[in-house]
Amino acid sequence: MLRSTASHAVPAHQVHMPDIHALLWPRHVALIGASAELESLRGRLMHTMVSHPFQGQIYPVTRSHTEVLGRKAYASVLDLPQRPELAVLIIPARYIPQALQDCGRAGVKAAVVLSSGFAEAAGADGSLLQAEMRAIAERYDMAVIGPNAEGFANLPAALIPTFSPALEASERPLLPGGRPRGQVTVLAQSGGIGFSFFDHGRAKELAFRYIVTTGNEACLETMAIAEYVLEEGKTDALIVLLEDVKNAATLRRVAEKALRAGVPIITAKIGRSEAGVRAAASHTAALAGSYQAYRAMFERYGLIEGHDIDEMIDLANALIAWRDRLPLGKRVGICTASGGGGGWMADTCAAAGLEVPILDAETRGRIDRHLPAYGTSQNPVDATAQAVHRIGYAGLARLVMDAPAVDGLVIVITARSPKNLKRQEAELARLAQETKKPILLWSYTLPDPQSTKLLADAGYPLFTDIRNCARALAAMADYRALREAFLKPVEVTTTPAPDRAAARATLAAGDGVLCQWEARPLLAAYGIGALPPAALVHSAAAATEAAASIGAPVALKVQSPDIAHKTEAGAVRLNVLGADAVSAAYAALMAAAARLAPRASIRGVLVEAMAPPGQEVILGIKRDATFGPLLLVGLGGVNVELLQDVVLAPVPLSLTAARDLIVRLKGARLLSAYRGRAASDVDALADAMVRLGLLAKDFADEIGEIDLNPVIVHPEGQGLSVVDALVIKHGPALGPTVARRS
Amino acid sequence: MLRSTASHAVPAHQVHMPDIHALLWPRHVALIGASAELESLRGRLMHTMVSHPFQGQIYPVTRSHTEVLGRKAYASVLDLPQRPELAVLIIPARYIPQALQDCGRAGVKAAVVLSSGFAEAAGADGSLLQAEMRAIAERYDMAVIGPNAEGFANLPAALIPTFSPALEASERPLLPGGRPRGQVTVLAQSGGIGFSFFDHGRAKELAFRYIVTTGNEACLETMAIAEYVLEEGKTDALIVLLEDVKNAATLRRVAEKALRAGVPIITAKIGRSEAGVRAAASHTAALAGSYQAYRAMFERYGLIEGHDIDEMIDLANALIAWRDRLPLGKRVGICTASGGGGGWMADTCAAAGLEVPILDAETRGRIDRHLPAYGTSQNPVDATAQAVHRIGYAGLARLVMDAPAVDGLVIVITARSPKNLKRQEAELARLAQETKKPILLWSYTLPDPQSTKLLADAGYPLFTDIRNCARALAAMADYRALREAFLKPVEVTTTPAPDRAAARATLAAGDGVLCQWEARPLLAAYGIGALPPAALVHSAAAATEAAASIGAPVALKVQSPDIAHKTEAGAVRLNVLGADAVSAAYAALMAAAARLAPRASIRGVLVEAMAPPGQEVILGIKRDATFGPLLLVGLGGVNVELLQDVVLAPVPLSLTAARDLIVRLKGARLLSAYRGRAASDVDALADAMVRLGLLAKDFADEIGEIDLNPVIVHPEGQGLSVVDALVIKHGPALGPTVARRS
Repeated sequence: MLRSTASHAVPAHQVHMPDIHALLWPRHVALIGASAELESLRGRLMHTMVSHPFQGQIYPVTRSHTEVLGRKAYASVLDLPQRPELAVLIIPARYIPQALQDCGRAGVKAAVVLSSGFAEAAGADGSLLQAEMRAIAERYDMAVIGPNAEGFANLPAALIPTFSPALEASERPLLPGGRPRGQVTVLAQSGGIGFSFFDHGRAKELAFRYIVTTGNEACLETMAIAEYVLEEGKTDALIVLLEDVKNAATLRRVAEKALRAGVPIITAKIGRSEAGVRAAASHTAALAGSYQAYRAMFERYGLIEGHDIDEMIDLANALIAWRDRLPLGKRVGICTASGGGGGWMADTCAAAGLEVPILDAETRGRIDRHLPAYGTSQNPVDATAQAVHRIGYAGLARLVMDAPAVDGLVIVITARSPKNLKRQEAELARLAQETKKPILLWSYTLPDPQSTKLLADAGYPLFTDIRNCARALAAMADYRALREAFLKPVEVTTTPAPDRAAARATLAAGDGVLCQWEARPLLAAYGIGALPPAALVHSAAAATEAAASIGAPVALKVQSPDIAHKTEAGAVRLNVLGADAVSAAYAALMAAAARLAPRASIRGVLVEAMAPPGQEVILGIKRDATFGPLLLVGLGGVNVELLQDVVLAPVPLSLTAARDLIVRLKGARLLSAYRGRAASDVDALADAMVRLGLLAKDFADEIGEIDLNPVIVHPEGQGLSVVDALVIKHGPALGPTVARRS
Repeated sequence: MLRSTASHAVPAHQVHMPDIHALLWPRHVALIGASAELESLRGRLMHTMVSHPFQGQIYPVTRSHTEVLGRKAYASVLDLPQRPELAVLIIPARYIPQALQDCGRAGVKAAVVLSSGFAEAAGADGSLLQAEMRAIAERYDMAVIGPNAEGFANLPAALIPTFSPALEASERPLLPGGRPRGQVTVLAQSGGIGFSFFDHGRAKELAFRYIVTTGNEACLETMAIAEYVLEEGKTDALIVLLEDVKNAATLRRVAEKALRAGVPIITAKIGRSEAGVRAAASHTAALAGSYQAYRAMFERYGLIEGHDIDEMIDLANALIAWRDRLPLGKRVGICTASGGGGGWMADTCAAAGLEVPILDAETRGRIDRHLPAYGTSQNPVDATAQAVHRIGYAGLARLVMDAPAVDGLVIVITARSPKNLKRQEAELARLAQETKKPILLWSYTLPDPQSTKLLADAGYPLFTDIRNCARALAAMADYRALREAFLKPVEVTTTPAPDRAAARATLAAGDGVLCQWEARPLLAAYGIGALPPAALVHSAAAATEAAASIGAPVALKVQSPDIAHKTEAGAVRLNVLGADAVSAAYAALMAAAARLAPRASIRGVLVEAMAPPGQEVILGIKRDATFGPLLLVGLGGVNVELLQDVVLAPVPLSLTAARDLIVRLKGARLLSAYRGRAASDVDALADAMVRLGLLAKDFADEIGEIDLNPVIVHPEGQGLSVVDALVIKHGPALGPTVARRS
């Protein structure tokens, strides 16, 4: 009976992937459109490229000069003395196809197309050019980023094929010196924003490996670069600005790979609002998916969402610095010499979801020995300036860090003067090596750049934004917990196993829409909740008979694919008992349906036993245009419809994931016991979610949408009843229903 | 009948206030505890004070030296050649009373006590010393800040009596040069945090007037300084860090005065969380009030809450720069040369509650003439780097700023290179003068300090945090709207006027707790909702008679001050109809009460007509220890109890304030029409809130707490019914009920 009949599209990773190594690590580079004019983008590009100590050859290619910045120029890439692996193209859009074709013929394996005027421009010409460009890249199997990109930077190689002013040679070295650091890679479609991370991050002593901006992504998308970077294994955190994901399977695979490798992805999604979607669409010809669906993906795979450049840099800095010692929980010890600063930090930590517990007596005793009478050891530990002057920040941290009640430390410091920190440098560095718990530093004063450098070398990224500091510690704990849960392999199964053949037959038999009566066998095949005894009838007499055989109050419900809101259409009668009442209810239903929905196709009337009472929830499957099926859970009719209290997750989902999802509902407490009312059977709800998720995954290609509304969750141990159900089969016209409905 | 009998405590502002002008603007200053040792706080203080160009004399007072830093030192303030208005004291706590007394005798009018070891220290000695210090200050009518303070800075006078390293003389002038700026004053108990605002703000070209840190506030509290500053009229925005408010009336008065003057207060409250309260309590001996009550005050008086130093600086900068042109609404036009930056800003604006509308056709036509094919004029206006290079940021802004659909502009810029901005400086400055709408600049690249200065001189504070930029525009619009509503004098009245005498009599007659039956006349006197027909009975026969005379289904409710949750105690029967049923219900109630609450005092059984259906809400008055009576409104039983969906406001409140409060409920949509259900009578609800607010204000000294739960709001035009009520009279033991319950 049990055959695995689920069908899948061919995953994108089985498609051949061009050589990204040639793109990021070429031995030699051709610059097509090279110029010496510093006022032009071309000139800035050329100048930037040659002013960094890249070890390979950089060949200018241009028809207008024989020499550029003292280097011999060539009229065509075909004329070069040796084959470059990478070509950087900055010529008008209309010349790109020919130039790219020349590259292909010359054996160039990778290209960066910086020119604009492709799919992002008004009119059809640009889109045609972009399609042509893609075809050529495929023909010659070239790894191409762009068009409309700002290029990339490989910092360790000092290879900087971009005109971004952020990467112009300056006194600031490309990579921070001092202690060897973990490295971050930045991936963005937008060049301006992509490279701005370098600006902000270098000021905070963050070490960058690659910054890659991909523009319109005619060929390679950010996720393909991400995949290379993860396989390379030299990147400790990714910052990814998402405007568009062309292939959800790739994002999912990359996210999984990153989570497995322990390389956190810090991301910002552009296109969360309507105006943001507009901007993304015109800017890089992106079709932004539903933000709700993105969030469901982020939450599943531990992507950490940032909302500001500095915030994302701070998150990357903290996650990299403490990657081998992420906090085991969310309890924080706060040390300070500033009472006000400690209090503010405590409030900010609490707002970020951290706990600031009072320390144990033993720890407090240890601390108290060092404090003057006006200090306090409870937590925040306000040691006063006097004690901190004597024992230093490191000494203070050592008094607190072994407290069993804390998972991580925040030290509130003043980093204005590097002189004061210089004295403590060795002690702080030793502490960073020895501590088993992460220690974050927030300076309320504006730090001197030397202070930032000194602390970074000692092992501590320095926070200047109090919210970012608290957020980082919370995100670190969340990331660790999520990753550890992910690494414990949980196979999503149910006992007994679903009857997939029966489900397939039910789906095949139904037309576009399955009403409750038609959907019941599908739910039964997967064991989703209890289905009250019921019968489909076509006459008052049959209704009476069915009700009698049920022998309890019944509901009568018109079954029609054309009546979505049965209550409003008068297509439901509840709590009907006795032959006369059933017969009258049947007649009234048919009359109401004929009056209110005269053209509705009526498939009969469902006579169903009333379910016992409980908390109403809604369960469903929605199909996102980008991410495919997502499970939805929400609480109660009014809560869903007016308060929009629903959460989504990709399918399938494990029992733990189902439970976590329920907890995230604003109204989750409605499921708990209160006053005289018993707690609802959350176990049964989570179980039904797992089963529904499996169903949606197994029939991802067949199912467009499922609405189980309402589902009655009975008191603990008593399960749940699916009281209404609607299944819409997948059709090309349905589109992104989540986006449309939210 | 209508006598105004409301009683009031004597308002604090009738109390004599010492001379804060002498504190902040002394001609000469004595430094008691002066030292030349730079390693000590005393030495740093002395050094800092003399190294700024303060025009008056600074007299060192110390017994250990005859000269300090080349200035003649005196053994006592009594020995000085002329009377200083201000004394700065930095000697051990135990010597403070004597020294302060000497100051008083010498005619010194003001003092700053920097020493620690007072009420913030463990043990009773410090508190005693602090009381002694306060007594001396009162005796000599001195304006005293501290103890445990870090002093203050008067930047225009270059008077810097603090040891804060933030104010050490440096190459950076105390005040920014260039264009005359509006000035901000910072008030904080915490010295470390207070002065850190200077650090962060000077880097953002903000001009400071005063920074005053008040420590334990034994005598003067921040609000007194705020009052002086407002009366002086030279400060354009206040940044106030609140740890403790000793006198709510003062906070209220200052907030009103500031709002009237159009001086926005940007505030952060320390003690929002339990750990924060702990920190504040130990740090400055503060008793933090309930954060919910603070928020209600902030919302009423337009105080703008910040959550990070930089965010507060950014808010102050924007509010000062555009104080005469705050936005009329929340619709923003976004201009950018970076598509990614524009999209991100659009999302961030939407998240901050701003609207990013598509621009009108005329405006778009005007813009389109300047854009290449790959730009877009819809909004965000992505002009592309090419167009911005040609017409400049100012040119771009001018194309958008007259669009009728926008109230303010955000320009996404790159301020890395001052060179590029230098070219545009004059145009930008002219634009800042001419625009009628505020224009905020966000740089996604890290700005060069010269860029920040150049833009500030041109009239634009520069944002580097995208969230702060969007937040600032939203806060500016909110502030303007709130202030304009405030300046239209609305007298809170009701028609007919409340029968205060009847209310007074009802309150006087009741003992500590008024049950529903006893509370009904109070509600009637103020016209708070409809009270269903009812009678209090003491026998089954009387119950039957009462029910018969009502002639409709009734509720029976045990009236006892000892039974708070009637439903759970079986002390309510609903929808009872017919003599037998009423009689049986009466008996059952009395039996249940005897069984479940044998010691409860029973005042009878209320027989009340069932109210018509509607949306349940809760209305109430809570008494905060610091702020006094607050009105509470929440939606529905479960929403209040499990989802904590309640909001608070100070009383009395106007009809507009009541409506605004209702809208702020998470579940506000439950009051609107949906599907077949009619909208609830929100007008009646707002009216009842105004009346309840008046009642609470009129009897602020008599009423401890009022619970109207539930109140049934009927469909539009049909009013509301108060279905249960409880009034607890004010007693000293009640304390801060909001804090206790939340």
